[in-house]
Amino acid sequence: MLFPMMYAVYYGEYFLLKSFALPIAAVIALFLIIRILTGKLKDKSMSSKDGFLLVAFSWITASLMGAMPFYLSGYIPTIADAYFETMSGFTTTGASILTAIESLPKGLLFWRSLTHWLGGMGIVVLTVAVFPLLGIGGLQLIKAEAPGPTVDKLTPKIAGTAKILWIIYLSLTVIETVLLMLGGMDLFDSLTHTFGTLATGGFSPKNSSVGYYNSAYIDWVITIFMVMAGINFALYFKLITGQISSITRNTEFRSYIAIFAVATIVIALNLHGDTFNTAADSLRYAAFQVASILTTTGYATDNFEQWPLLSQTVLFIVMFIGGCSGSTGGGIKVIRIATLFKQGINEMKLLIRPRGIFSIRLDGKVVRKKLVYAVSGFVLLYFFMILFTSFVVASGGYDILTSLTTALATVGNIGPGFGMIGAADNYSHFQDYIKWFLSFAMLAGRLEIYTVLVLFIPAFWKNNYNCYADSNICLFLYLIKRSAYCLLF
Amino acid sequence: MLFPMMYAVYYGEYFLLKSFALPIAAVIALFLIIRILTGKLKDKSMSSKDGFLLVAFSWITASLMGAMPFYLSGYIPTIADAYFETMSGFTTTGASILTAIESLPKGLLFWRSLTHWLGGMGIVVLTVAVFPLLGIGGLQLIKAEAPGPTVDKLTPKIAGTAKILWIIYLSLTVIETVLLMLGGMDLFDSLTHTFGTLATGGFSPKNSSVGYYNSAYIDWVITIFMVMAGINFALYFKLITGQISSITRNTEFRSYIAIFAVATIVIALNLHGDTFNTAADSLRYAAFQVASILTTTGYATDNFEQWPLLSQTVLFIVMFIGGCSGSTGGGIKVIRIATLFKQGINEMKLLIRPRGIFSIRLDGKVVRKKLVYAVSGFVLLYFFMILFTSFVVASGGYDILTSLTTALATVGNIGPGFGMIGAADNYSHFQDYIKWFLSFAMLAGRLEIYTVLVLFIPAFWKNNYNCYADSNICLFLYLIKRSAYCLLF
Repeated sequence: MLFPMMYAVYYGEYFLLKSFALPIAAVIALFLIIRILTGKLKDKSMSSKDGFLLVAFSWITASLMGAMPFYLSGYIPTIADAYFETMSGFTTTGASILTAIESLPKGLLFWRSLTHWLGGMGIVVLTVAVFPLLGIGGLQLIKAEAPGPTVDKLTPKIAGTAKILWIIYLSLTVIETVLLMLGGMDLFDSLTHTFGTLATGGFSPKNSSVGYYNSAYIDWVITIFMVMAGINFALYFKLITGQISSITRNTEFRSYIAIFAVATIVIALNLHGDTFNTAADSLRYAAFQVASILTTTGYATDNFEQWPLLSQTVLFIVMFIGGCSGSTGGGIKVIRIATLFKQGINEMKLLIRPRGIFSIRLDGKVVRKKLVYAVSGFVLLYFFMILFTSFVVASGGYDILTSLTTALATVGNIGPGFGMIGAADNYSHFQDYIKWFLSFAMLAGRLEIYTVLVLFIPAFWKNNYNCYADSNICLFLYLIKRSAYCLLF
Repeated sequence: MLFPMMYAVYYGEYFLLKSFALPIAAVIALFLIIRILTGKLKDKSMSSKDGFLLVAFSWITASLMGAMPFYLSGYIPTIADAYFETMSGFTTTGASILTAIESLPKGLLFWRSLTHWLGGMGIVVLTVAVFPLLGIGGLQLIKAEAPGPTVDKLTPKIAGTAKILWIIYLSLTVIETVLLMLGGMDLFDSLTHTFGTLATGGFSPKNSSVGYYNSAYIDWVITIFMVMAGINFALYFKLITGQISSITRNTEFRSYIAIFAVATIVIALNLHGDTFNTAADSLRYAAFQVASILTTTGYATDNFEQWPLLSQTVLFIVMFIGGCSGSTGGGIKVIRIATLFKQGINEMKLLIRPRGIFSIRLDGKVVRKKLVYAVSGFVLLYFFMILFTSFVVASGGYDILTSLTTALATVGNIGPGFGMIGAADNYSHFQDYIKWFLSFAMLAGRLEIYTVLVLFIPAFWKNNYNCYADSNICLFLYLIKRSAYCLLF
């Protein structure tokens, strides 16, 4: 929060200082409490249960702290709204309850975009370095792709991998910022849009999003970086170390590029002569919007609800897919779609030759049955989550299209959808209880659903809590667990 | 077709006789050709490949023959429309292209409803007796429930099972017809509505469907029989033989009744005081519409697009589920939903205890992993099929809600949906190519998708065609295969 404070000072927005100082103090206080509690700790071992709880707990707490500047400054006067906006930022969803974005002071806008950048990095570390080891809904599939060595001890691996990922992320940030400045943006706009792009978030400090600049150069730069942000970050590590062949052989990467290309071409052909007159414009707007929805960024350069219905339906279908695993993108993830597609073909081959043995190959390697299993389970849970979220939204009196795409846009961490949350609308009109539920839905979608839902099954809270000697972190987690248990059941 | 001919004579519609006589002649000719070709056959063995081809071929041919009376009589002047209407009948979908149903002669209306009844019976025999042995997308799950003994030789089992099923189906038909006549319907209306109910089809000879009668008694009779038609027919066999405990222990049956009850109560509470003033009316209309959509019948007593949006969303979610396996209902089927729900819970338990072993129990028995696998594959293919169908509909210039629910309503064999195919609308406005595709989608949905899609993968047509000596049926199928192959690739 020191960076947005600096921006506030630079732009003379001194009234914001108090709104940032208080949460900074709160964060430091929280840090000290945890530090003291865990200071004497010798054995820092954690069970995977502790892991799930810590991940959820930190995301929830970060959003609570992050919401304070919006709430305290009075620019977002209700807690439900401030929390929604911050959770939307950290989960890189990009759904906004703001109706007049540009009326916010620069310091707050910078913080708003920065939540994306931090959340995006957080999720890359989690999905590349931590989740594969925990076995989340088939994400073991990318285990082999993780840059560090695959060892049993979590800590050294995570720390090493995280450092490499941070360097890649920072480099991409610098490059995109410079490229956008070359296109005529000032530093503030370049930085905030870069944060939104690389995190596939979608917050823009402009009411009309990237459409504000109306520049083909800027559109293409952002398109390319959105596509890049949707690629598994482990592949950049491979690129640096010269393992080009393992990138071109990567099933997920190839499928991702193919989906992007096909959807862009279909929409461009559909738009040409209808919405736009030149082929260059049709391609530019089509590529931008497909990249924005596929990677779950949510930027807009045009109101796609005015586009021909075929284009809209293609975008709607693309909403289900999402980026690659280990990227900042949300959604189901390309690797899961590819796995299940291959599995579907195999099931049919099995019908023809019931005694045949058909295996699935990703990146040229055979995938174990158990993983395909986990992937199927994930996708179904994803659909259940979307239907349940639709149901909650509908209970507020919203039509089916709005309910369904709101669910897709939040669980998939996209941001805008169709109906009353289209490119030209926002989330301010929802009732508070829906906003709270959507904050939860964004978190669940971001943390691969299982990680969050697992906290709701009674087995999670039962019996087998093994406390190590001298472990205060253990006691700390135990207290959180007990209180959460009392709240839930 | 002799029955509708008799009705035509009874009502003095002599101009229809020619329209029925010609297809009857065509069917007899086709029968004779097949008979002669297979007459000398000693070994009637068929591979499962032949099975898939025969099932698809007979459904397609039956619809072609069945469409002739509509087309020849001039009441449905285009082939696309006549074929769509007939396929909708045989697949028990109930989607109609007719704008003024009551202007059709009685003979045609009777035939239209009779296609439901025949198709409904056909699918019960297939799903209870044939599909489980072929291993279609997890339908092996109901193998244990099939009435006859489970032996390897298909023929004796199928014939025996089919006979029992026919007796149950006929008995239910007689009972419902009598009950409806007691409610003041004439024989014609009672029969046609019974056909539509037991087949979970939904064709009604009235423009305003069952709403025409505006009778609580008739609504409740049809509600109860729709619910009964959505139950696995093998359970009726158990009921007759007194195995009550195996019915109450049946996981699918229990889930089905629970889903019906919960959805009805939610909608009734939502309707009460809003759309209807009395609790009795709210319950009556809610139960009818939930039964109609859940079992994929598609009858309507009220325009549910005018209901509160929460009720609409509940109905929309119920559209995904469908009836029980081995019933005449379409959709994903309750047993698959139940299996995957349990699997989802297990996956989460696995996250907490990675080394634990969690199995799924249905009807008190452990389910093999391979089956859960097949079920997941099916559900995903189902979603892909729905998205692809939505895409085809959207290409005709339809909005997302119409495209999506048209896909759901045809692939799920429901009939009406939301948007431009709501309870008060019909399918006449679609372009011909969309109608053809939807005819295909209805067939694919009806035959559990795999059975039809398997014909489109090249491996189906390759090499291993084993012809038995003296086998003319083999030659016949080979010729069909070759021609189909030439058409497709």
